[in-house]
This record gives sequence, structure tokens and C-alpha cells, in this order.
Amino acid sequence: MNSFTGQHILSVNQFDREAVEKVFSVADNMTPYAARHKRTTVLEGAILGNLFFEPSTRTRVSFGTAFNLLGGEVRETTGMSNSALAKGESLYDTARVLSGYSDVIAMRHPDIGSVAEFAQGSRVPVINGGDGANEHPTQALLDLYTIAKERQSFGQPIDGLHIAMIGDLKFGRTVHSLATMLSLFSNIKFTLVSPKDLGMPSKVCDVITSAGHELVISDNFEGLSEADICYQTRIQEERFESQEMANQYRGKFRLNQKIYTQHFKSQTVIMHPLPRDSRAEANELDNDLNIHPNLAIFRQTDNGVLVRMALFALILGVAHKVQDFDRAVHWYTNKHQN
Amino acid sequence: MNSFTGQHILSVNQFDREAVEKVFSVADNMTPYAARHKRTTVLEGAILGNLFFEPSTRTRVSFGTAFNLLGGEVRETTGMSNSALAKGESLYDTARVLSGYSDVIAMRHPDIGSVAEFAQGSRVPVINGGDGANEHPTQALLDLYTIAKERQSFGQPIDGLHIAMIGDLKFGRTVHSLATMLSLFSNIKFTLVSPKDLGMPSKVCDVITSAGHELVISDNFEGLSEADICYQTRIQEERFESQEMANQYRGKFRLNQKIYTQHFKSQTVIMHPLPRDSRAEANELDNDLNIHPNLAIFRQTDNGVLVRMALFALILGVAHKVQDFDRAVHWYTNKHQN
Amino acid sequence: MNSFTGQHILSVNQFDREAVEKVFSVADNMTPYAARHKRTTVLEGAILGNLFFEPSTRTRVSFGTAFNLLGGEVRETTGMSNSALAKGESLYDTARVLSGYSDVIAMRHPDIGSVAEFAQGSRVPVINGGDGANEHPTQALLDLYTIAKERQSFGQPIDGLHIAMIGDLKFGRTVHSLATMLSLFSNIKFTLVSPKDLGMPSKVCDVITSAGHELVISDNFEGLSEADICYQTRIQEERFESQEMANQYRGKFRLNQKIYTQHFKSQTVIMHPLPRDSRAEANELDNDLNIHPNLAIFRQTDNGVLVRMALFALILGVAHKVQDFDRAVHWYTNKHQN
Repeated sequence: MNSFTGQHILSVNQFDREAVEKVFSVADNMTPYAARHKRTTVLEGAILGNLFFEPSTRTRVSFGTAFNLLGGEVRETTGMSNSALAKGESLYDTARVLSGYSDVIAMRHPDIGSVAEFAQGSRVPVINGGDGANEHPTQALLDLYTIAKERQSFGQPIDGLHIAMIGDLKFGRTVHSLATMLSLFSNIKFTLVSPKDLGMPSKVCDVITSAGHELVISDNFEGLSEADICYQTRIQEERFESQEMANQYRGKFRLNQKIYTQHFKSQTVIMHPLPRDSRAEANELDNDLNIHPNLAIFRQTDNGVLVRMALFALILGVAHKVQDFDRAVHWYTNKHQN
Repeated sequence: MNSFTGQHILSVNQFDREAVEKVFSVADNMTPYAARHKRTTVLEGAILGNLFFEPSTRTRVSFGTAFNLLGGEVRETTGMSNSALAKGESLYDTARVLSGYSDVIAMRHPDIGSVAEFAQGSRVPVINGGDGANEHPTQALLDLYTIAKERQSFGQPIDGLHIAMIGDLKFGRTVHSLATMLSLFSNIKFTLVSPKDLGMPSKVCDVITSAGHELVISDNFEGLSEADICYQTRIQEERFESQEMANQYRGKFRLNQKIYTQHFKSQTVIMHPLPRDSRAEANELDNDLNIHPNLAIFRQTDNGVLVRMALFALILGVAHKVQDFDRAVHWYTNKHQN
Repeated sequence: MNSFTGQHILSVNQFDREAVEKVFSVADNMTPYAARHKRTTVLEGAILGNLFFEPSTRTRVSFGTAFNLLGGEVRETTGMSNSALAKGESLYDTARVLSGYSDVIAMRHPDIGSVAEFAQGSRVPVINGGDGANEHPTQALLDLYTIAKERQSFGQPIDGLHIAMIGDLKFGRTVHSLATMLSLFSNIKFTLVSPKDLGMPSKVCDVITSAGHELVISDNFEGLSEADICYQTRIQEERFESQEMANQYRGKFRLNQKIYTQHFKSQTVIMHPLPRDSRAEANELDNDLNIHPNLAIFRQTDNGVLVRMALFALILGVAHKVQDFDRAVHWYTNKHQN
């Protein structure tokens, strides 16, 4: 990807290492706006079409917030039951029509490939906010950006990282995309910990090994003491055929303060794509770690705003002039203390 | 209608030819804003109440976008199940309350006459975005505006037009309103093509003939070779008593490249109110016409933004000073190439 | 409450008389903006997270409008079925994540105590927009602000007021909160009129009497001729165990022009928290009073915008500099005539 301007963002496969680092560099520049040290009006008058044909509160609001923080307006739609798609309208028609109403589109849809199909009809750039089990590239970017920043705080690059990915690695779109994007870097060690039936797909393992990275497969927490990142995932129960099948994995790969101390070094950073199930019987990541300084899960969602701001700025060709439209923040905030 | 300022827009019957031409003249002035050559802040700080008690993604987003393009903010509501209306609140009360929250309201509601009833309680101007089978005046305006612009590209006025209206003319609110508004002009020829059971209501035929226009009624595609506009409509299957009744009309009035070439002249412009059903068994307007330069269906929805911008500007009394608030567009766009 | 800046607004119990009067003083200053004499950009670039996990059109739109009128942007969510909360996410996690997306949050949720629990995880100030049967402090503030302004128009303070509260006083969260907040003032007379089974909870009666106010309990309209305020409430039928139980109270405490004239003095101001059921068989407050100058019910909802503007301005620390960001209103309005 030579230039982001005017491009769709549909897949992690569009990104080479240089493109990823470009996004991260622009995301860094977005920090003072998200922290409310200042604000910018660079996209004042621009309109985001935030089209969530499959509802997702946090991803939708994160995209909308990112666009607002750049000064733009947001027009939204949530759900599909009443839309024209339900009356047999093609994604091409929907795209042609709705792309007349905005300058850029962020879209989620339950069907694999739907966002790419939509993009073919769209007259404005489209960012994939998730198309079923397929792709969710901004999640991979925010995860990797978080890894980069956490590593930076220890004075280290992404290269040379040891990451443990834990839980449901079969159905977890998040870990597939993150593993793919991490493989763009050098000398990564992946330890993949999952129930045997929920292992990482061979397609993703091939990406890792053919890029020359180290791959260890396990079904327990041994051998993780040198992991820099512990990336925990939710057992996505709706992916199973029955609740009974889901139940047999409940709690098996649970992480809490005691297990963390027993198996990981004190610098290991804990990540999770969220939401996590915090009910007593189903913790995949216990609340007793909430105050742990290495728990990065809420830094991940905060970083999601920065990464989405960066993508909007790059796609709309304003990344280099955001600061030309700086304004002061007049109101109370403690965001910069977070 | 002598002046638009402060007026409700509830029905096509409010419009005389002069009023229609006023809207079109203002819509022309809106083109550079929608094309992103520049932007305006004339309504910065104004609030649209976008009240869709019956959901409609494209109409709702079109109104919201039009208001954003003039610099204003949008507060929305979609659906009715949880609203106070469901608890026995009158439309009068709803209107009195909600009109305290905005400067102008766009409203859709499933019940005939509901928007007019709401307008009586409202303390701000109300635009009818569709009240059941009754009225949808902005659709008629955008259709007629599209006709005017397509004719203009051939160097011709609306007067003297030959329009073929095809499909379900009985339940199609769109064609009723368009025929009524077209009748304000001179020397129009209407060829109405439909299954016998789905013919144009006599009330609308009377409007056409009493204004002195030519009216031809048909149930097939013969005699359309001189039509300037082919206005195709969706068989609205939810209007039939049973799916069986709906099915017998499926595909009968289908338009595709072959049928178009066979029955129409090469200048005939193809229109459709959208959405169209693009499933294989039910095409009313085939995708093989998508690249035809005379296919105006997406120019219609684009024009909808211009017409709605014009109505907001006229109703709020700013049509003459939009340009006083011009600002530059700083971001990437290819909209002006559309 | 010494200072509002950065504070959550969760309960009427946070307010002493001085705090209430501070809100009202700021609300007074907001009048020219709501009346469209001018506008302000003081919160331009700020973002409200308007999180309605339980839908409520008017309260949601009122909060959003108030924030827009101060120049800010609004990101919203409505309903809970598709949210992460339904997948077992804790309110703490939801709050940590969503508070990263805005500068301040207004929140409604069906569960008692949920908003306070959410506030503990939130990194930005939270305003309670209603947590089930528990609290709805902005409704109490707008009711009391309306009382203050209506009294003012008769040249009188809140102190010394005689208020009649009528209808379902058991389940009506509104009257509980209003009675509590009124008790901060001096020498109030409360006449509580309800079916015996729907009387005011003893907890609220204790607040009234322990503050030294006069309390009269009744089940009919006698003895109300000197009431300054008649606060009528809806029999909230969804609170009853069965429709039959609800039906026996229908119409018993109905107020119409004839009953008003018979039982109240000509200055008595009529209030109601809205929505009211305006169906013929169920009027709690008849439409024949709609043109009565003392009917304050729509002034209440208008005042709700002023009170919410005041709270936002106070919490975000800009109450004293709103006017520094004044701008002219360029568009048509008749709001100042309302």
C-alpha cells in the first residue's frame, strides 16, 4: 500500500510493515486530541457514514468518536431488519445510494465478504468494521498498536516479541488477524494455548511459520514464563453448536491473579479483545487483575480511537495537516491522567 | 405558496409551479456543497429533529446528511415500539414536546395523516418524510428535479415531456405524487403501464386529464418508443393480501438491457424510486443496465440530498445567504467526479 | 456539593438548597440559547456519550439537544439486547470502555443502582438519566425549576408553596424525587392525593415531615382550593401485577376543565411528568385543558433542556464562560415566542 488516500481498508492482508508503521506514527500524533490537551477541526463539515448492519456498541461508538475528534459529523444506522437489504436490495445498490450521503464509510455486516462487496459499489472509501467471521482489520491494528506501545514502555520494539495467545483460537477472528499482522515483523515467538478442538487454523499457522517465526502449540499454561504478552480471548459461546459443547470449556483457560503470578513473569502484559464475561462461573479473565498495572485491556480500547482517527486522517488525506486546525479545549477533563 | 419560511411541507398539493421551480433553483445552488467543492456553516448550531417512527434507512440518512451539509446538527429517533406513542400519548403531545428540542423536524410515520396531525402540535416547521400510503413530497420533488436535470442535459424543459410509468401504479405512492406534481407543467404525455388490477387510481388520472395532459393506459411495453422517461416501480409485495397474489405479477414488467433496446429510444432515461429487488427471480430492473449512461436511479438519490438541502434552507429562511458562510473543503474527495 | 466540576450526578440526595439554586441560576442563563436569540460554541469539539440502555425518546433527545445547544457532539446507543452487557460483561468494564469515547455521559438503565455502579468504572462524569424505579434526578430538577419559574411569574418564591401531588404516588419515581428536593426549601405544604393502595412510601413522607413541612394525605379532590401547584401523575400500568388491577384505578383521579374549576383556585398551576395517556377511556389529564394558561406541562419539558444544559455546563466547568463563545443565529425561528 503506497498511499492510503482514497483507499478502502478491508483486510489485514492489505498491510505491509511500512503501512502498519505509518498508521502507528499517525496514531501517535492523535494522542493529544484524545487526551483533550487540544482539539482539531480538520474534518469540520465532513460526514462519516457509520453503517452497522450488525450491531456492535463499542466498535460503532469508537468509530463515531474518532471521527468527531477530528471535527467531523456522523450519520449512523444500526441493524438490518428494516433496511432495504431485507427487501432484496443488492449490496451494490445499497452502496451506491448510501455512499452518496457521506465522505467515508465504516461498516459492519454479519456476512463474510459483504463489506468488500459493498466497497465495490461505494463511491467513497470504506473501512471494514467486521464482516462476520472474516475480517476486522481495525481490531488487529489497535491490538498491534497496543503491543507496540506496551513494548515501548519497556524500551523494546515489536521485533523479538514472545506472545502467548490463549483460549478459543479456532473461532476467534481477532487472534487470526493479529497473528497475521504480527508476522510482518521479525523474530516473533508465538505460543498458542487452546483446547485441542479450538486450535489455531492451519492457514494462520502457515502464515506464521512461512514468515520464519517460532511456533509452539500447547493446551496448558506451562512454558509461558517468558511471554511478553498474554493475549487472552473469550470463548465465543455462540459459535458452538450447543450450550453443552460450550460449557465443557468454561473456566479451563481462566486467568486470575494467582495463575498469572504462578505462570508469567512480572512484566507480562495482559491483553483481551473484550468484551469479557465477568459472571462468576465463566471468568476468562478475573476482576482481581483489574488493578494490575500490566492489564492493558482498557488501554486497548482507548488505543482503538487513536488507530481509527489515524485511518480516517490517512484515507481522507489530512494526516499531515491535522495540527493546522488545532483549537483549545475549554472544558473540564481528566483524560490526560488516564 | 408565497414564501417557504416557517412553513410545514406536508403534501405535494401545497406546491404550484413557481414553488417547485423555486425549490429546484435553490437545489442547483446546493450542488457545489454536495460535490464537496466547498462547504457551508450557515446552519451551524441549528438542530434537526429527524423523527422516523417508521424506520427507513435511506430517507432518514438523506435528511440527516442534507442538514449536516448545511452545517447543522441532527438528533434522531427510529421506530415506535418503545416510544410514548405506544403508551397512549397523542401526536399533539408528542409534537409539543419534541418540537421543543429542535429548529425543524423531518418525520416519517406509518399512519396516513399522522404527520399533518403532528404538525398541528409542533412549534417548529415539519417536513413530511412519508406518512404511510399517503404522501412523501420530498420523493416527488427529487424525482421531478431529476427529470428536470436529465431533460436539461438534452437541452429540453419539463414541458412537452413523455413519461412512461410502469409497474404497480395502484399502491405506489411515489407515482401518484410524481404524476400530480408533473401535472403542474405543460403538455405532458403520460403512458401508464400496469397489470389491470394495479392501475393508477382514478383520482390521479383525473388530476392529469383535468390539467389537459395526454393520458394513455396500457398493460404492455408497446408504444413506448418515444418516451423520454421510463419510470419503473417496485411491485410492493407487502401491499398484497397474499404472497400468491404477489407472485403472479413477478417479472411481468421486468426491464433489462434487451427489453430496453427493443422498446425504447436510445435517449430514454430510466428511473426507479428504489429500493429495487435484485434477486434473480424478481428483477423489476435488471443489473445488466447498471452501466447504462441513461440509468438515472442513483442520480435520483443523489438529487434527494440537494432537494432536501433546498427545503431546509428555504424553510429556515437562509437560502439566499448560504454562500455567505462558505468554507473550504480540506479532505480527499472524488465526489465531484460522480 | 461544593463544586459541580467533574462530579457525577446520580441522586437527588446529592443536592442541598445551594446546589439546587446554583443549577437554576445557570439554567436561567441558558434561556437565550434555547430561545434561539443566540447560540454558543463553548463545548465545540466535546462529546456526550448518550447511553440509553433502556429506551426513552424524550429524555434521550432532551439530553442530546442540551449538549448540541452548548456546541457539543453526541454519540448515542439505544437498547441493550445486542450490547456486551447481554454477554456477561460487567458494568465496570462497560464503563471503563465507553468512558474512553466521550467527555461526559448521560445514562439510562432499567436496573436500580446500575448507573451508580457504572459511574464507579467511568473515567468521565456520569449523569443519571433514570435507573429503573430508583432515581431520575434531572426530572426532579426540571420539575422544581418549573415550579420556581411559575411561582416567580406570580412574584413568589418556592418557600411557602402548597403542592398537591395526585395519582399513583407509590410507583411514581418522579413524585418521590420531587418531594425530596422540595423538602430542601422552607414551609412547604404537601397534599398527597392517591388511591389508598398507591400512597406515598413512608420513607418519602418521613423526609417531608422531618424537614418540618406540612403533610396532608387524602384520597379525593377536597381541600385543594388553595394549592399553588397541582402535580398530576400517570397511573403507570406496567407497574401493576395485572391489567385488571390497573383498570380499577382508571379515570378515578382524572383532571379536566370542569374538575379543575370546581376544586382549584384560578392561579393553580397544572404539572405532569409526561407522557400522559390521551386515549378517551384513560385520561388522567384531559385535552380540554390544553389551552389553559396555567397548564405548565410543555413548559416542563422545555425547562428540561435548560436544566440539562446547566448541568453539562457546571460539570464540565464552563458555566461561567458560555457567553464568551456567543454566536449569532442566522435562521428562521419563532422559539422566543413560545
